[in-house]
Amino acid sequence: MATSVIKLKAKEGQEAALEDALKRIVAASNANETGIRFYQGFRGGAAGEYWMLESFQDLAALKAHTSSAHFLAIRPELAACLDGAPETIRLSDL
Amino acid sequence: MATSVIKLKAKEGQEAALEDALKRIVAASNANETGIRFYQGFRGGAAGEYWMLESFQDLAALKAHTSSAHFLAIRPELAACLDGAPETIRLSDL
Repeated sequence: MATSVIKLKAKEGQEAALEDALKRIVAASNANETGIRFYQGFRGGAAGEYWMLESFQDLAALKAHTSSAHFLAIRPELAACLDGAPETIRLSDL
Repeated sequence: MATSVIKLKAKEGQEAALEDALKRIVAASNANETGIRFYQGFRGGAAGEYWMLESFQDLAALKAHTSSAHFLAIRPELAACLDGAPETIRLSDL
């Protein structure tokens, strides 16, 4: 598996736009990719805090995701809503 | 969904025992429960750092998990390997 937990922070006032972009990227990825084990976005406990939980079957599936038309289309929109860089925690299988 | 990200730290020397307990609780839960969307354990980046990614269909499925025979049997063994309390980050659906 290729698994990451990613913490995102929305710019103040951009929470709704970020949620909308996350929902669309989650829906498009789950509808169009075959190598996803789990790919969902969530609201965290603090205001403006969001988390992506991503687990792909393997590195090829992760690469297919990050090079997909839907990802490349929505990513700039999502990035524009972020306050700072995402905090990515890469995990490895037991 | 009822979703959490849980960070665990193994006591020094208990890493293998913790990994073994995590693998068994993950296998038993996925084999015996119907309300799991994703339930997997991972190694983190630092020595002795582990993460559980847990997403259940709803609170009833989470309750079925934490009251299951397999969870109750393995939990004390798992807890004995931990250095400090788990850090649980509860997430909510977008």
